[in-house]
Amino acid sequence: MDELSIEWVAEPSLDDPALVEGLPGVGHVGKLVAEHVIAEADSELVCRVHSEYFPPQVTVGDDSVAELAAAEIHAVETGGRDLLVVTGDHQAQDTVGQYRVTEAFLDAAAEFDATDVFSLGGVPTGELVEDHDVIGAVSSAALKDGLADAGVEFRSEEPAGGIVGSSGLLVGLGGKRGFDAACLMGETSGYLVDPKAAKAVLAVLGARLDFEMDEEALDDRAEEMEEVVSRLQDMEETPSPGDEDLRYIG
Amino acid sequence: MDELSIEWVAEPSLDDPALVEGLPGVGHVGKLVAEHVIAEADSELVCRVHSEYFPPQVTVGDDSVAELAAAEIHAVETGGRDLLVVTGDHQAQDTVGQYRVTEAFLDAAAEFDATDVFSLGGVPTGELVEDHDVIGAVSSAALKDGLADAGVEFRSEEPAGGIVGSSGLLVGLGGKRGFDAACLMGETSGYLVDPKAAKAVLAVLGARLDFEMDEEALDDRAEEMEEVVSRLQDMEETPSPGDEDLRYIG
Amino acid sequence: MDELSIEWVAEPSLDDPALVEGLPGVGHVGKLVAEHVIAEADSELVCRVHSEYFPPQVTVGDDSVAELAAAEIHAVETGGRDLLVVTGDHQAQDTVGQYRVTEAFLDAAAEFDATDVFSLGGVPTGELVEDHDVIGAVSSAALKDGLADAGVEFRSEEPAGGIVGSSGLLVGLGGKRGFDAACLMGETSGYLVDPKAAKAVLAVLGARLDFEMDEEALDDRAEEMEEVVSRLQDMEETPSPGDEDLRYIG
Amino acid sequence: MDELSIEWVAEPSLDDPALVEGLPGVGHVGKLVAEHVIAEADSELVCRVHSEYFPPQVTVGDDSVAELAAAEIHAVETGGRDLLVVTGDHQAQDTVGQYRVTEAFLDAAAEFDATDVFSLGGVPTGELVEDHDVIGAVSSAALKDGLADAGVEFRSEEPAGGIVGSSGLLVGLGGKRGFDAACLMGETSGYLVDPKAAKAVLAVLGARLDFEMDEEALDDRAEEMEEVVSRLQDMEETPSPGDEDLRYIG
Repeated sequence: MDELSIEWVAEPSLDDPALVEGLPGVGHVGKLVAEHVIAEADSELVCRVHSEYFPPQVTVGDDSVAELAAAEIHAVETGGRDLLVVTGDHQAQDTVGQYRVTEAFLDAAAEFDATDVFSLGGVPTGELVEDHDVIGAVSSAALKDGLADAGVEFRSEEPAGGIVGSSGLLVGLGGKRGFDAACLMGETSGYLVDPKAAKAVLAVLGARLDFEMDEEALDDRAEEMEEVVSRLQDMEETPSPGDEDLRYIG
Repeated sequence: MDELSIEWVAEPSLDDPALVEGLPGVGHVGKLVAEHVIAEADSELVCRVHSEYFPPQVTVGDDSVAELAAAEIHAVETGGRDLLVVTGDHQAQDTVGQYRVTEAFLDAAAEFDATDVFSLGGVPTGELVEDHDVIGAVSSAALKDGLADAGVEFRSEEPAGGIVGSSGLLVGLGGKRGFDAACLMGETSGYLVDPKAAKAVLAVLGARLDFEMDEEALDDRAEEMEEVVSRLQDMEETPSPGDEDLRYIG
Repeated sequence: MDELSIEWVAEPSLDDPALVEGLPGVGHVGKLVAEHVIAEADSELVCRVHSEYFPPQVTVGDDSVAELAAAEIHAVETGGRDLLVVTGDHQAQDTVGQYRVTEAFLDAAAEFDATDVFSLGGVPTGELVEDHDVIGAVSSAALKDGLADAGVEFRSEEPAGGIVGSSGLLVGLGGKRGFDAACLMGETSGYLVDPKAAKAVLAVLGARLDFEMDEEALDDRAEEMEEVVSRLQDMEETPSPGDEDLRYIG
Repeated sequence: MDELSIEWVAEPSLDDPALVEGLPGVGHVGKLVAEHVIAEADSELVCRVHSEYFPPQVTVGDDSVAELAAAEIHAVETGGRDLLVVTGDHQAQDTVGQYRVTEAFLDAAAEFDATDVFSLGGVPTGELVEDHDVIGAVSSAALKDGLADAGVEFRSEEPAGGIVGSSGLLVGLGGKRGFDAACLMGETSGYLVDPKAAKAVLAVLGARLDFEMDEEALDDRAEEMEEVVSRLQDMEETPSPGDEDLRYIG
């Protein structure tokens, strides 16, 4: 295998698609949106990006078939703008790998003459969030008005710690390569998978790219998470006996 | 030394051999099986795979001769299918190394026109295991029937965390290169070296590849481990005094 | 993107400039001096050094525009010697990267026929420092007299642990390439951002390179830090319910 | 700078020299011997090995001149066999680096037509050692008799954990390149710098290579270490007050 290779599966004809990235990250917000869009709309696997920079592992599917760690790009017809949606189970494993894998996503976008890039993620607030604002960062200030109209908030020098990983690099490297790139970050506690933050990001993205989508699956996930939280709160109140035995043998 | 090199020691003539890998991993299940097969059957060292990705160290043999860290491939005549058995003391040391070393194993298999790959390992359950089921993951669903007949269980999307390391990559990369590859994982607690899980994997492998093998050595190892566990349980009951002195000087 | 690239923004005409480096490090002393000099004097961005060895992230500016992690080099007219000031938010992320990024700084210096290099940093003392001496290390003993006249102290074999990161390599690699290179390290506790140590280093640098500069901004930062310390001391005296406060300040 | 470069300083004429390596490691045994030999006998710096795989730092000499991290090779006339002594403050920083730096040492040895390699180190016993035996491992069993005559002990499969770092690789890689290579390891607790273990290794090396050397400096270091140990034991008995304040501010 080469250091990095794109395995093409289909070559759909897309009309001025926007690249949308949702890899694992804070609150899994980006990944939730990306997977939701792929599941709800008319989508088709376009390519897999394999790389020695992804963790050396396979995932096992429902048919027990093992799939090499990869990022996948689906073509999605939303009714509005066509999308190329990047998702997967992993970020690249080291600094150099993050740069190279992100360049591969941009290479794939360039294959389809895409010029707009949206990376999706969460921004951790450290406390439980009621209203999930969506914060934006852009490759060029000219992009702000259109996004603000769609509901994105722009806050000076936020997030303060910058944007780490592929979501950040898509804007940084994308801007240098001439893409119009924006990162849309849903506010989230940072402690839990957050389908509500994902809904907020999805709403903004749809407003910007002229599509609407059923949100029931995200609502269901949100309810599940609420149950998880309430169970965690119960556990906190009841000090658990046991769990010791295993440790001694370990 | 090159980044990766195969040092050929012998060129035995093998009849449609299957590559079997057992490197260190969960419960050392794979390594126990591989070493047992090499020791019990008629086997011959075929090559050593050296690599800058293996830990920078040597092991010292019973004649005090130091051997550079390497994976070894033995040709094994089992009475049933011929085997090429990969074993060693180390997995590659980083992400890129795991990919490259695994490709070298597949290269060696290709030298012998092998088309079947079996990677062996353990799957951790987190609790003491009585019945050591063997779980399978495959490069292609067509491989499942033959393995199920040999006693392998297939469970949807298990192991949930995927398969990490060379065992996983042999299936993932092997499948992409056209090998028929399967990973056979014995259930094991994950806390201890587990010769019983190794026995279960060996039984399945023998059933699939038409060989039988004396298991006494694995039974002896299993008894040793039972003594270790029972000593650990005694220690748990008697809080130890001492051990402090060394720490202060350290 | 290449492994390492210099993006030229301006090509000012400089008169025998000295390269001055102030990247993040102990007490952020070097970075404070470098940023102060850029802010106070007549300065112009000359180039950005991008590299896969910088962390895979962007910073977000006051206009919400994301900038790829980079080191920046500004041309600074001080009234005395012209300067090329290297600063940024990051050191390179691994061993090899540190060497290569430092070579890039020296390459940029060579573009301007610079022959003098000053790397700035802090040397940790482990206790609160009243008098901020500035310790020096040089690429050649012939450089010591001129620096001693400017107030630099030279202490045999200090700092005992050597000088780690770009500041150290600029002297080590710079010396091998024929630059006259010195590292100037302000004594600092090592526990806090230290604008007073930065003032001490700035004074020495100005004395050596014939410039003076308003220090009010550093004085203001020093006062802020004193307030932080006094708040921390209050917290120490009042055993905290919660531990929540620290998070807010952190 | 290249990934790895040898900077030649002198080209002495040596008579069938033996390469002797003593880099930092267990008990600093190898480094103590190497530095002692260089200091006591008639020695001359031959070359420095620089590498991006050494830590990105400089050490500061007694004249405040910074030296780039490097391994140094000295030619040493002992009265018996001539030596090429490798020493330095660092091992290479990662797996690949360890292999490449070790190859560079062997390259330097080959420049002088050296065929014998002795890597020196310590083997940790985990308890205080009275009699410092010297354990050997070799690239070829034929080397054992000559070393046993010099007092080296050979114990089957010891050290059990193998030999890590440049000392191990010199035997493993050296053997593959045709050198007669041995690793001599002084038994040591593993908790402290151990000049007594160094004396034991020096004695064996001198017996094998026909030289004798004043040992007073090692005796002095051994006495210093005994004082350190006895002070540590006193500290253990008196629980220390204080040290807390700094932590609160830190």
